Amino acid sequence: MQFLKVKNVDEVLEILNSLEPLPSEIMELGSACGRVLATEILAPEPVPHFDRAVMDGYAVRAQDTFGASEALPALLEIAGEVSMGEAVSRQIEPGKAMAIPTGGMLPAGADAVVMVEYTYPLDARTVEVTRTVAPGENILKRGEDIPVGEILFPQGWSLRPQDVGMLAAVGIDCVAVYRRPRVAILSTGDEIVPVSTPVLPPGKVRDINSFTLAAQIEQFGATVSYLAAVEDRLEALVDICRNAFQEHDVVVLSGGSSVGMRDFTVRILGAFADAELLVHGVAIRPGKPTILARIGKKIFWGLPGHPVSALMVCRALVLPSLAVLEGRAGTDLAQDHGSTLFGILANQLPSVHGRTDYVPVALARDGEALLVRPIFGKSAMISVLGRADGYLTVPAHVEGLDQGSRVRVYLFSR
Amino acid sequence: MQFLKVKNVDEVLEILNSLEPLPSEIMELGSACGRVLATEILAPEPVPHFDRAVMDGYAVRAQDTFGASEALPALLEIAGEVSMGEAVSRQIEPGKAMAIPTGGMLPAGADAVVMVEYTYPLDARTVEVTRTVAPGENILKRGEDIPVGEILFPQGWSLRPQDVGMLAAVGIDCVAVYRRPRVAILSTGDEIVPVSTPVLPPGKVRDINSFTLAAQIEQFGATVSYLAAVEDRLEALVDICRNAFQEHDVVVLSGGSSVGMRDFTVRILGAFADAELLVHGVAIRPGKPTILARIGKKIFWGLPGHPVSALMVCRALVLPSLAVLEGRAGTDLAQDHGSTLFGILANQLPSVHGRTDYVPVALARDGEALLVRPIFGKSAMISVLGRADGYLTVPAHVEGLDQGSRVRVYLFSR
Repeated sequence: MQFLKVKNVDEVLEILNSLEPLPSEIMELGSACGRVLATEILAPEPVPHFDRAVMDGYAVRAQDTFGASEALPALLEIAGEVSMGEAVSRQIEPGKAMAIPTGGMLPAGADAVVMVEYTYPLDARTVEVTRTVAPGENILKRGEDIPVGEILFPQGWSLRPQDVGMLAAVGIDCVAVYRRPRVAILSTGDEIVPVSTPVLPPGKVRDINSFTLAAQIEQFGATVSYLAAVEDRLEALVDICRNAFQEHDVVVLSGGSSVGMRDFTVRILGAFADAELLVHGVAIRPGKPTILARIGKKIFWGLPGHPVSALMVCRALVLPSLAVLEGRAGTDLAQDHGSTLFGILANQLPSVHGRTDYVPVALARDGEALLVRPIFGKSAMISVLGRADGYLTVPAHVEGLDQGSRVRVYLFSR
Repeated sequence: MQFLKVKNVDEVLEILNSLEPLPSEIMELGSACGRVLATEILAPEPVPHFDRAVMDGYAVRAQDTFGASEALPALLEIAGEVSMGEAVSRQIEPGKAMAIPTGGMLPAGADAVVMVEYTYPLDARTVEVTRTVAPGENILKRGEDIPVGEILFPQGWSLRPQDVGMLAAVGIDCVAVYRRPRVAILSTGDEIVPVSTPVLPPGKVRDINSFTLAAQIEQFGATVSYLAAVEDRLEALVDICRNAFQEHDVVVLSGGSSVGMRDFTVRILGAFADAELLVHGVAIRPGKPTILARIGKKIFWGLPGHPVSALMVCRALVLPSLAVLEGRAGTDLAQDHGSTLFGILANQLPSVHGRTDYVPVALARDGEALLVRPIFGKSAMISVLGRADGYLTVPAHVEGLDQGSRVRVYLFSR
């Protein structure tokens, strides 16, 4: 296996962008929100399917109302009533009108609706219209909302609630979407014990990373299996990885963060004949000892063991890789995961050229301004992230940010 | 039943804020992300549990390195090696050092770690230290990350991935969280047919609202049951609502939007002896004919039938009500659902005093600026939301917004 030099974030994202999406599957519309379309979708029928009233009132021929006013109303003969949800066979002849509810089907011949506020029935057969309506007024023409054959969504579009509504409107009740990545999460390290351990033995720590990584990846929308923490033993790790790849597309191993661990992870990969090491160290802080490999079509991430480093690398790199696997088109991989806002940096923030820094920050209001305060703390402290509302990045080509700079904050979502 | 006058958005939100949260339930930590804590949580143990190295190197008594430099290194006797994850019984005596990995347990007597980069083993028994370290340097003291007894999270806190990590760190593997609202969704209207109807009969439309409302409410995190569309018949609707309230906390009925429908919905409520009408019309557009009622501890929402109106009222009012039921503390109900950003309004936007407008908008980049373009279209058009990236609100006390105004946009999330 070939050893590689440390890559910068853009180089890693470029590698991720070249990954192939997973196969597609058919999903019922009711479960399709948040999923990514594997094909372009055209409207198989128009919406609405018929000329439709969008106000309560009278369906009329617009020209019969021309010149009508309070002072000089038009008198129209009431030719009946349109019932909601029913076909109308009758035609509107000149000088006639039909009562119609919002959503009702416009009778043939009618081309507008006079709102009920501008009508006064004189008797059962005659209605006074006190306002002129233009052709098309207060109606939705067949196909005016969605024309038949229109491209509703491109391939790679991820469906929002209203998009699901558009599909429902045109009668599409199943869609082809990319399969969601199945991710196995492993923690390793001789010092790691399960969270449920009643009394923590000296020298041991509880397994934080399995929980934070699983929660972050599930929040993103992938399917997560949480595999038990395993000791730092090569054969055990190779076995568990081999099993994990049977049922998962991605294995995320967070390892001890000592110097030797990175090479240890590479030795795990060495046990797989078709493993291809893509990234061996990334120029980011925290998270430098990050490893990315491809094993056939499967993806292997080796993350640092520090909880803060592991979670930040998950946000910065692992989620983007899952987005590519799920076929999200045109994703700005570095930025699209979670929401962002802009604020004013409250402190000077030093940084080293050639490395992208991910800095946890807390937000505070200062009058109109939003203050962004970096949270300094030893990188091993999970409480640094607990106190953070989000993080900012200092790009590799920048040597620190000045107090008062306008900075973009990536929010941690709930 | 008492009839009420139209309320403004703030009055409705005030009513929502007075609703009681649902009962709590015990949740395993692995399923707790996104859930809302029903109790304050204190740290039952410190993190770390022991003084811990955060760098690879040598555990030392800091004073033994005072004055050490490249030119004048300190010589320390190697008293052994700390193994990862193991208790150290040996004490560090003056003039001695122990090799220690990142995360290793500091031996008693040691109070700092010299990074491996500043050490040169001369032989198996002696190491040269070329830099002074201060007490506490490169270590994390017991409880330095999380002190025992510290308040980790207040009641009403909704858990993020890193918060789950904090709980894991202190050995909490189950938490008491508020139960998530169970929501039943009903569409009514004689014109509504199921989405799967192969050929749309004249005068009928497919059931959009069940899909959009279910998707939006599920995205928010509540549990949704989708009940079939029912005809506009009082007895049928009362029956289905009565059944829905058996198993759900909230019933959301989206109805025909004709004038009569609002009163029809009120008549449904009349069939429940303990129904209390809280809101009967809201000064918003779209969505004026919105109804809110309490039936015992259950909540009833009557939404307009127009897909755009129904979905916007769901975002503006129904989601905030679910947030209160789920016990989210200090939620800014009007703003906290989904992410927001600021941009420059591209058009003049007229509005009517005394009514809050929710206006779908599309975003476009114009150099550095983010342009916010209102999408005009008939309110019955679902495609208006399909083309929108989010929406802005024009408050009741404002009569329109000027072109070039800085506006907050609430993004539709995927």
